[in-house]
Amino acid sequence: MKRTVLAALLLTAAAPALSQTSITTLPPPVAVDPKVAALRDNALDNDHYAWEVVEGLTTEVGQRLAATDAEARARDWAVQKLKAMGFANVHVEPFTMPVWTRGAESAEIVSPFPQKLAVAALGYSGSTGPNGITGQVLYFDSVDALRLAPDSAVKGKIVFIDHHMMPAQDGSGYGQFGAPRRQGPTIASLKGAIGIVIRSIGTDHHRNPHTGVQYFTDGAAPIPAGALPVPDAEQLVRILKRGQPVTMHLTLVSEKRDGAQSGNVIAEVPGRDPSAPILLVGGHLDSWDLATGAIDDASGVAITTAAAKHIMDAGRPLRTIRVVWFGAEEPGGFGGKAYAEAHGKERYAIAGESDFGADRVWRFSSAYMKSDPAIHAQLTAGLAPLGITKNDKGDADGTDVEETIKAGAPWISLNQDGTRYFDYHHTPDDTLDKIDPAQLRQNVAAWTTVLATLSGGIESQPKQPKRR
Amino acid sequence: MKRTVLAALLLTAAAPALSQTSITTLPPPVAVDPKVAALRDNALDNDHYAWEVVEGLTTEVGQRLAATDAEARARDWAVQKLKAMGFANVHVEPFTMPVWTRGAESAEIVSPFPQKLAVAALGYSGSTGPNGITGQVLYFDSVDALRLAPDSAVKGKIVFIDHHMMPAQDGSGYGQFGAPRRQGPTIASLKGAIGIVIRSIGTDHHRNPHTGVQYFTDGAAPIPAGALPVPDAEQLVRILKRGQPVTMHLTLVSEKRDGAQSGNVIAEVPGRDPSAPILLVGGHLDSWDLATGAIDDASGVAITTAAAKHIMDAGRPLRTIRVVWFGAEEPGGFGGKAYAEAHGKERYAIAGESDFGADRVWRFSSAYMKSDPAIHAQLTAGLAPLGITKNDKGDADGTDVEETIKAGAPWISLNQDGTRYFDYHHTPDDTLDKIDPAQLRQNVAAWTTVLATLSGGIESQPKQPKRR
Repeated sequence: MKRTVLAALLLTAAAPALSQTSITTLPPPVAVDPKVAALRDNALDNDHYAWEVVEGLTTEVGQRLAATDAEARARDWAVQKLKAMGFANVHVEPFTMPVWTRGAESAEIVSPFPQKLAVAALGYSGSTGPNGITGQVLYFDSVDALRLAPDSAVKGKIVFIDHHMMPAQDGSGYGQFGAPRRQGPTIASLKGAIGIVIRSIGTDHHRNPHTGVQYFTDGAAPIPAGALPVPDAEQLVRILKRGQPVTMHLTLVSEKRDGAQSGNVIAEVPGRDPSAPILLVGGHLDSWDLATGAIDDASGVAITTAAAKHIMDAGRPLRTIRVVWFGAEEPGGFGGKAYAEAHGKERYAIAGESDFGADRVWRFSSAYMKSDPAIHAQLTAGLAPLGITKNDKGDADGTDVEETIKAGAPWISLNQDGTRYFDYHHTPDDTLDKIDPAQLRQNVAAWTTVLATLSGGIESQPKQPKRR
Repeated sequence: MKRTVLAALLLTAAAPALSQTSITTLPPPVAVDPKVAALRDNALDNDHYAWEVVEGLTTEVGQRLAATDAEARARDWAVQKLKAMGFANVHVEPFTMPVWTRGAESAEIVSPFPQKLAVAALGYSGSTGPNGITGQVLYFDSVDALRLAPDSAVKGKIVFIDHHMMPAQDGSGYGQFGAPRRQGPTIASLKGAIGIVIRSIGTDHHRNPHTGVQYFTDGAAPIPAGALPVPDAEQLVRILKRGQPVTMHLTLVSEKRDGAQSGNVIAEVPGRDPSAPILLVGGHLDSWDLATGAIDDASGVAITTAAAKHIMDAGRPLRTIRVVWFGAEEPGGFGGKAYAEAHGKERYAIAGESDFGADRVWRFSSAYMKSDPAIHAQLTAGLAPLGITKNDKGDADGTDVEETIKAGAPWISLNQDGTRYFDYHHTPDDTLDKIDPAQLRQNVAAWTTVLATLSGGIESQPKQPKRR
């Protein structure tokens, strides 16, 4: 009875409201497994695992830049925490990579209006050395404008690239407006610039620089490359608009070293059928160095781990759930590549990552849209009570699972609301207070629904008799 | 006719809505001088002077810490600007004072969870020297808790004082919750602490430390004293709650030197009667060093100067309007004291300051409440169309005019909405983008109304014939 009522409610929720439909043209009703619904609702109301992970990791480790001692401490913390939570096969799979670390940083307008600006180097920036560099600032409103400029105009200058990224729920804009960060330094270097500063790829108006990775490609020599906070970039624009030549002194000290160690932390909820395809979920353990990386991505490992824990609490799934806390995502997805090299050929029932903060999931998509609509309908029906709609145009998402998906794993994307994500992304402001516990629980409930739906069935286990 | 309608509207607006009133018990109707209303409405719709001042000063000078070269550049800028705007008697009145400047700053948890925290020294903090100090952190939830602690417990420690200031429209809370900053360092020093950090006296959740002045009194030796941003203070609380001893390495390098120069910049709109009492308005020119001081207090000098300029544009007032851009308010109201020493005995018709940001004025009060209710009724009626209510419990306000008011000048307080003021106050985030141009114009309209109402009448002057 209860099941029928629930199915009827879901059917109503799923019906397209904006077009005339006849009851005969509606898709067949989908009943959600009451066990799945109960696990989802329990996670939504009661989850505390995710908060414990995100609070613990950000408090007891703090920032955990890839391939540094801090990231190693984070792996130790992760192993201890995952074991304490009851996961099986908890272990680290190490890999090596180049490490980049930040030193002293400052930016100063020397003339015409002497004043300091805030700045942070981009990942793999060249180093100015401790004495810094001094040069005339040359303004471009886009990467294309820089690309079109004659080399002779750029040579010897400090390039400044502006842009106007706006907040968007789906995070679109980061691709297009991220170009100054990703391509700007290489183009500026190839044209002979002595350095580059960009308007931070961010949507806030605080004095927070947004760092992030970039690579020097096409044979470009590394030059110092930094991000100005949005208010500082706007200040520089106002100064430039006065029309006088603007001279900047820029200090961005940094160091790059090959052969440093990072690693992935792996934990499992073993399935009753070890040969069944695996459910792979996770997030990344590393963060940028400017903050404690609460939304990027302590929350991602917390959410997916908490979801797996809720299944574990309920009993034993048919399929093994594997949770991965990937290492070194920020500097270029090193952990995801290392994982795929080691495990890409295994059989998966799903591969998905949480790496877009901790605000509510608002839509989802998965490979099952095409490969198995019945499973997709189950997911759709199970997620709908959380306010999550299906996105028929969705695509695979997540740097850490990208290579594993390319190797054949079916993907799932749970899209979080990104409206305020780029206010904090890669800044000193990515701290625990930006996480809303109620929204965090909704995320856990969503991933719990996914894991429960695809688990192959969860068998309650008799509790171990207590020894006296 | 138009005048009658306006008066009727104002009467309606002023009528108490929540109690039964008879038309016979209402106060006598007040007609606003149409010239005053026209000046007010023009400022509200069209003012551009204030934006030009606040944009120019923050862009072309930037931060302007008291008694530094930057403040001297700000005075030069002010003199040039005020002359260009057509003010008379533009000049600087210099004074000397001790200057305090900031050097390298950092805070680091050494154990149990190594990580960096953001920090900024408070004004007149002692210096740690370049090597910093290391000590155990001792938590107090208030200044009173510190005061009650035995000296033996505090000796050799780094004191940390927490608090929980909340946003308030009237800014209340800054008095009470500002105690950790104002009194904490002295009490900690007298009890033998080697340093002190406080939770920033602020209402935001960004990685912005809120600096501000404090003095070592009662014979206390200066010790290093810093403010942690709110997220960092909350992080430190979480770390302390784990129960292990927490060791901090704190570097707050600073320097104090006596006999530095600051000054007040003074400009006038000369009245037709030079012997009539003066209308004194202004704000402070100096800022803290962490930002460009847009809301504290470039906006204050901009608003009051723009209001005086609107009177100047309309003609010649009977009474002289004197605009003062006070120097060195932040480290202790040095400019206000110097002004009062030189000019406190002159006769004033009003003395008022704008120094609480640039959000809308929501209420006002003045000495005329008691001394001349008819004038106060004129002000009330003139300000009401701007949404400004009279505050019968209001009091004099403004560090810079405090001494002049004590010497006998009638005061006026136009209270701005302070709900978000302490999000930015004394932080790196006090930048131009925090100013809403529409709210800034409302401020100008309010001060224009005050000046026009108290001007003694503005006589239009024939325009100078253009030379050919």
